[in-house]
Amino acid sequence: MDEKQKVLCPKFEEAVTILSKKWNGLVISLLLENPYRFCRLRDSVDGISDRVLTERLRELQSQGIIAKREIEEKESTYTCYSLTEKGKALEPIYKDIQEWAEKWI
Amino acid sequence: MDEKQKVLCPKFEEAVTILSKKWNGLVISLLLENPYRFCRLRDSVDGISDRVLTERLRELQSQGIIAKREIEEKESTYTCYSLTEKGKALEPIYKDIQEWAEKWI
Repeated sequence: MDEKQKVLCPKFEEAVTILSKKWNGLVISLLLENPYRFCRLRDSVDGISDRVLTERLRELQSQGIIAKREIEEKESTYTCYSLTEKGKALEPIYKDIQEWAEKWI
Repeated sequence: MDEKQKVLCPKFEEAVTILSKKWNGLVISLLLENPYRFCRLRDSVDGISDRVLTERLRELQSQGIIAKREIEEKESTYTCYSLTEKGKALEPIYKDIQEWAEKWI
């Protein structure tokens, strides 16, 4: 490879891949508002299946973007999803894309 | 669709699609530095073919992100590509993604 040639920084590429993966945008933007239980998350995203949501949440968890907690409430336990610091740090990117899209598309 | 359900704003989705399309990241980030002639652009992007670069440039032009100009210089004419105002407005998004990726990935 020529010295002057440019390749995309792999970190940048990975970030764009996460952001552009189907459903991730919606799931992350909901979690930027507040933590969600699995069922409420599924009911809030139009068209997502249990299987796909489970898959996305697992991926985002393994990427350190969301955290899963078990919450005990009276006699039942439920699972709650929220953004980690890494996930919350995506907010300015979302805002910039939203602003650019509103203005230019 | 339930009122409480969320769908991704189609403008946001279109923006993310543009940003995430292979080579667009590199081509736009080069043009953020300065305008490029076709050959220099192709030589600067490692691994891109003439055909694919032509295709991407046409798409980005039809999306209003880049502009093409014919420049006459002495006895020859060459084509120069640069970002439009819409294209230049992508800079903060690139910076944010870069910063997030550097810090978190």
